Amino acid sequence: MSIDLRSIGEAGLLQRLQAHCIPGVVGDDGAILTLPPGKSLVVTTDVLVDSVHFSDRTTAAADAGWRAAAANLSDLAAMGATPLGITVGLALPPDTPLTWIEELYTGLTACLNTYNSGILGGDVCRSATRTLAITALGAVDADRSICRHTARPAGAIVVTGYHGLARAGLELLLHPETGQDLAVSDRQTLVTAHQRPRPRLDVLTYLEQIRPDWIAGMDSSDGLLDAITQICQASSLGATLHQLPIAPALARYCPQPQEWILTGGEDFELVLVMPPAAAAALVASLGPGAAIIGHTHPDPDIWWQSGSHRQPLGLGMTSFQHFLAP
Amino acid sequence: MSIDLRSIGEAGLLQRLQAHCIPGVVGDDGAILTLPPGKSLVVTTDVLVDSVHFSDRTTAAADAGWRAAAANLSDLAAMGATPLGITVGLALPPDTPLTWIEELYTGLTACLNTYNSGILGGDVCRSATRTLAITALGAVDADRSICRHTARPAGAIVVTGYHGLARAGLELLLHPETGQDLAVSDRQTLVTAHQRPRPRLDVLTYLEQIRPDWIAGMDSSDGLLDAITQICQASSLGATLHQLPIAPALARYCPQPQEWILTGGEDFELVLVMPPAAAAALVASLGPGAAIIGHTHPDPDIWWQSGSHRQPLGLGMTSFQHFLAP
Repeated sequence: MSIDLRSIGEAGLLQRLQAHCIPGVVGDDGAILTLPPGKSLVVTTDVLVDSVHFSDRTTAAADAGWRAAAANLSDLAAMGATPLGITVGLALPPDTPLTWIEELYTGLTACLNTYNSGILGGDVCRSATRTLAITALGAVDADRSICRHTARPAGAIVVTGYHGLARAGLELLLHPETGQDLAVSDRQTLVTAHQRPRPRLDVLTYLEQIRPDWIAGMDSSDGLLDAITQICQASSLGATLHQLPIAPALARYCPQPQEWILTGGEDFELVLVMPPAAAAALVASLGPGAAIIGHTHPDPDIWWQSGSHRQPLGLGMTSFQHFLAP
Repeated sequence: MSIDLRSIGEAGLLQRLQAHCIPGVVGDDGAILTLPPGKSLVVTTDVLVDSVHFSDRTTAAADAGWRAAAANLSDLAAMGATPLGITVGLALPPDTPLTWIEELYTGLTACLNTYNSGILGGDVCRSATRTLAITALGAVDADRSICRHTARPAGAIVVTGYHGLARAGLELLLHPETGQDLAVSDRQTLVTAHQRPRPRLDVLTYLEQIRPDWIAGMDSSDGLLDAITQICQASSLGATLHQLPIAPALARYCPQPQEWILTGGEDFELVLVMPPAAAAALVASLGPGAAIIGHTHPDPDIWWQSGSHRQPLGLGMTSFQHFLAP
């Protein structure tokens, strides 16, 4: 019989979870941490819910943990911030197996440790629905933070990597019978993109070297087109896209991947707008999939340009929104 | 027909909730804030779940919001920290009435504004269970923070106010037929203690004047006896209590209120241990209900002393624990 929360109680669970936290910070009503001198604090919150953001059908507990940590570190990267740590709020049914929780925390800390970060503390309580609330804290030079509303016209739109892979990986997990002709390595690439996304904190190092005169951006967690739309709306601009890099593994799985690339979501790349010369320098520093995909302009619409032909982008391509009735 | 989340969607909800946030901080992947020079950051997280922490039966949405904010500000006060703001993660069923959410935020901001604080941002998503995850951020002088593990023997144990009132207020809401002979003002005192608890941030001002040589403490959200036990365990000490102040309204409602005072919980007072002279000065500054209730000693047990008679405290008086099977 598997051990669940009823047998160890809240105190027993908290004691086990403390082993996953940064040593020395847990045990009081709150955690105390010191910000590096001259830095501002960045704070971001995500709530993840069973059957909405993860499911035993497609996501092992360790992967759910990794993805939750990655999503929050990605939000920090999108603001230009280096991670200080996260807090974890857990609401769980009493019959949740202890192994599921331990694996969730193993996944969380595996991702956090990869990026020199850790768990600062949290809270546990019972609920009918497995729920994970994460707040990530980061540090940024106040004058180097990345916001959405600061894009300018004639800026180059940069993606830091390929899009659509996470959506394709989810499809392979939901429908393993698809992609029968796919090489094992391609399947692995796509599934890993979904299960173990990598927050692009590495991009901050290159940006520090390039120091663009101005920058705007966010991450592409809700889809590439959504990110471009949000940045343009916040900056009162529009955009024209002229290329969408397609990962070789994605092309071999899906002959028409444009919709997944634009609206698939959860690739956790950065979408940045900056002067074209700085953009070219950044793309040259990054790996395959990084590219200048378009430019901004005062005309507030978002267009797709192919040769001399231009069409509005986004019709029939809506991103995922919670709550909306079908 | 009442408006619910299905009719406005995630984007519509986020737009409405932004009106409740601190102006200028929302709209990016995270909020940026600057810590006062020389201060350390304190972070604390709470998860509140429908039918566990609040219920439409006993708690209006505005009260649920107030209590959630108060609980987190109380954790900051317990660490000696002044609030910077909170993030709010909301997981909600799609049929949640919009009025419930608006009232929840009205309660949250009413409490936060009372203590010169506000909402820094958050996240919304759908769930089968109404869930509220709050992370509070505060600032503290690193050498003035209050922890649990720093109590010393022969310290005076101070409570900053009465206990048991919130538990009595809950009883009156659950069983309105009780307390028929209670004066309206007494009933109001008890119900308000449950619905609108006040985090004791005011105590920090007095502590700053008194500057005790050493201090330990936490808040009494999980019960007075739990707080004393936690501080003693973290400091490898025990305690003897010799008095428990009883609020007049509580005495008139409940002739034997000791169990509610010790284990009722949610009074959100501070339980502090410090040198006796400093403790006396602090109690003199505070209002009715503040008192020195006992002292710490190396003997690790917790005792109740009445005249020359002494008995172990805590038998049959367990605090609320999530998950444990009955």
